[in-house]
Amino acid sequence: MTTPASALQLRSLVTDDQKVELFLDTVEVPVPGPTEVLVRVEAAPINPSDLGLLLAGADVTAAVATGTPERPVIIAPLPPAAMRAMKARVGVPMPVGNEGAGTVVAAGSSDAAQALVGKTVAAAGGSMYGQYRAVDVAFCLELPAGTAAADGASSFVNPMTALGMVETMRLEGHTALVHTAAASNLGQMLNRLCISEQIPLVSIVRKAEQEDLLRSAGASYVCNSTAPSFMDDLIAALKATGATLGFDAIGGGKLTSQILTGMEAAASADASFSRYGSAVHKQVYIYGGLDRAPTELTRNFGMAWGVGGWLLTPFLGRIGLEGIARLRARVAAELTTTFASSYTDKVTLAGALDLGALTAYARQATGSKYLILPNG
Amino acid sequence: MTTPASALQLRSLVTDDQKVELFLDTVEVPVPGPTEVLVRVEAAPINPSDLGLLLAGADVTAAVATGTPERPVIIAPLPPAAMRAMKARVGVPMPVGNEGAGTVVAAGSSDAAQALVGKTVAAAGGSMYGQYRAVDVAFCLELPAGTAAADGASSFVNPMTALGMVETMRLEGHTALVHTAAASNLGQMLNRLCISEQIPLVSIVRKAEQEDLLRSAGASYVCNSTAPSFMDDLIAALKATGATLGFDAIGGGKLTSQILTGMEAAASADASFSRYGSAVHKQVYIYGGLDRAPTELTRNFGMAWGVGGWLLTPFLGRIGLEGIARLRARVAAELTTTFASSYTDKVTLAGALDLGALTAYARQATGSKYLILPNG
Repeated sequence: MTTPASALQLRSLVTDDQKVELFLDTVEVPVPGPTEVLVRVEAAPINPSDLGLLLAGADVTAAVATGTPERPVIIAPLPPAAMRAMKARVGVPMPVGNEGAGTVVAAGSSDAAQALVGKTVAAAGGSMYGQYRAVDVAFCLELPAGTAAADGASSFVNPMTALGMVETMRLEGHTALVHTAAASNLGQMLNRLCISEQIPLVSIVRKAEQEDLLRSAGASYVCNSTAPSFMDDLIAALKATGATLGFDAIGGGKLTSQILTGMEAAASADASFSRYGSAVHKQVYIYGGLDRAPTELTRNFGMAWGVGGWLLTPFLGRIGLEGIARLRARVAAELTTTFASSYTDKVTLAGALDLGALTAYARQATGSKYLILPNG
Repeated sequence: MTTPASALQLRSLVTDDQKVELFLDTVEVPVPGPTEVLVRVEAAPINPSDLGLLLAGADVTAAVATGTPERPVIIAPLPPAAMRAMKARVGVPMPVGNEGAGTVVAAGSSDAAQALVGKTVAAAGGSMYGQYRAVDVAFCLELPAGTAAADGASSFVNPMTALGMVETMRLEGHTALVHTAAASNLGQMLNRLCISEQIPLVSIVRKAEQEDLLRSAGASYVCNSTAPSFMDDLIAALKATGATLGFDAIGGGKLTSQILTGMEAAASADASFSRYGSAVHKQVYIYGGLDRAPTELTRNFGMAWGVGGWLLTPFLGRIGLEGIARLRARVAAELTTTFASSYTDKVTLAGALDLGALTAYARQATGSKYLILPNG
């Protein structure tokens, strides 16, 4: 296999006429530095965490397709608030894609880089929606021999996030978890992880078929937030599990508040009156923004509570290099079991800029997951 | 002075017909145990933190007065939500009053108790809206000779809260503070404390006269949340001070969110684009509930943020006995300077159950503060 001199890369450009333009650029294939490898990217997932950079907050319903079949272009308008937030991006065509996997086709001079030649690796660090990417070996995870790139494409974001939730739980003194949008790829992963670690998990979903999916995967506590009995179901599950830490992917609306209310009801069920509520600390971290509306907290859950943002990168900083290495080794060993991902759609780079596909993955519907095959 | 066998005590009773009844009960004057002193309570403030227990969430606008001038009774209906929350209180006439000050008129056998006979002490621990209270010496603060009871009545809640805010700031790695409802007795105290400790403080108020009051007391950064320029003023103050920790007495509405938005704007003012916002952790603690509406968080302040409840008692637990002793000694030494309180109205126990007075102090208006003189 010879490496071409140039290759395709997907770019997202905010223009000063308040639009985002998505297109395929022809870029030079980089020469790896001493500690880098050149990865021929064969698979890269579209995660919710990629969409902020890709779409820049554009109004996808008003997107139009232009360009050619080989070089499609999508143009979508930015609402004023999004434009204000993207000020620093105007005129800079940004590469996208947090993670992916592929074959190492060239390497720098260091032993660590040379050792990976010909291997299949997963990589993180951005710019993965392209045909070739030079990556420092520190950001590569060598996959077990025979692993398909598609199976290794989601080796970082979701697995490290699921592990990060469990580690955070232990670091902060909790013993059980609550998770929302819990039938997602990440939610299914967390369910398998909690089963293997014997951590009680309360999974909150919005549809009956999502309840079925999780229950058939062994989940013991699944609550449907659209059911009339939701608060009763949630309180019963929180009593049974003692969960006092939640991770919320939704963010907007009342769900975070409902979780805290349920935790307080469970904590104070057998307690005598206290005007400040129970002394049990209840925490919900918002790690996603599936609902962009404001978070509404009713504060009917005493005084011992916290809500905050949670992001993978600072968490990794908190556990340090040794902690990261430990988690990565576990991901590699359980990539097709605990940390398996599944995709409903596989598209080329051009296919990712198809208007129908874009509309679908921008919706972030649970059960729909896209994988880009940049060399497919 | 001889101690009577019985004395008056204010009580708050939730009845099963969904009402709260406030009345004066005749109770036996307690005999102090070995480590207790009997305090003739001469002054006790009505703090916002007393109102939850006193009023039980009743609809004060629908309160009616009954009883006699010597034994007034107030009866007010409880909205259904308040009634649910007060379930555990039905039928139990509760004494009220977190703190107060008075003269030690009798003491138990221990040396520590005997040493306080005849002294003026401040005391915390509840039941202070009564003529006599037996208190463990551990909950007493001996006031400097010559201190009037009225000057020592607010020696715990506000001073320890102001000191607690500063201690929390240091414990959690911040270097400046934001405070809301900042012209309150507590806010003025915090302003004096921050000046003496050279801690930059951003004070948020709602009225021009409150701005003036704080500025004339030496406050450098005062923002009026009703001014059209509020967000600009706030961001400028946050840039100047570097404050990344706020204490919010209001709770409901958008103010907590605005503070976080302002902190993020200040933190990212000179930074290049980051899709997850700045890495600077921004925290607001809600320690009061002047607005009972839901807290609305717009989450346009990146991912490094937290909001939570803050309560004095668990904070004191966090700093331990040694920490508490250190703070108490400081309060005693600066009771008429840094930690001075002022009162707009002084009432007897019967006067506290006057409908006009009740309506006034239930409003919790900044600048209005009641002191009960139980033996007045």
